[in-house]
Amino acid sequence: MQVLVIYDVENDRVRLKVANACKDYGLQRVQYSAFKGELTGNRMEELFFRLKKILGVDVGNIQMYPMCDKDLKRAREIENVSIM
Amino acid sequence: MQVLVIYDVENDRVRLKVANACKDYGLQRVQYSAFKGELTGNRMEELFFRLKKILGVDVGNIQMYPMCDKDLKRAREIENVSIM
Repeated sequence: MQVLVIYDVENDRVRLKVANACKDYGLQRVQYSAFKGELTGNRMEELFFRLKKILGVDVGNIQMYPMCDKDLKRAREIENVSIM
Repeated sequence: MQVLVIYDVENDRVRLKVANACKDYGLQRVQYSAFKGELTGNRMEELFFRLKKILGVDVGNIQMYPMCDKDLKRAREIENVSIM
């Protein structure tokens, strides 16, 4: 299933580790603090505990949302990229 | 249905307008650049076009994800708050 991970993490070093863990699990960055990709239920649980360990006692919030195909079909995006 | 809105918007003034539009539609802030709440399909479309108008030609990315109850039940969150 597709899983969206969004995070607010204060500490730069910890935030980078969160991003790297998401990449390790094959997720793609969709925004500065958001990753999305295919995970099994088990891999999602694994990533959850890895992120929990990475955050440790640092201040932050991490949310993981599994999404079914039906919902993803109704998702909408607005994208304006810089031409510079 | 529950809808998650996440955004990356460069311009501070525009980013504030995006946040205010989400609040106007009754969504609650769940992270610095993420709002969530109940919207009908029509209201989600309305908000989508309002956010599109707000962003205009500014650089940014806004994503809206409708989420069914089944998926939301499997969502996970890690939250460490500051006690200061």
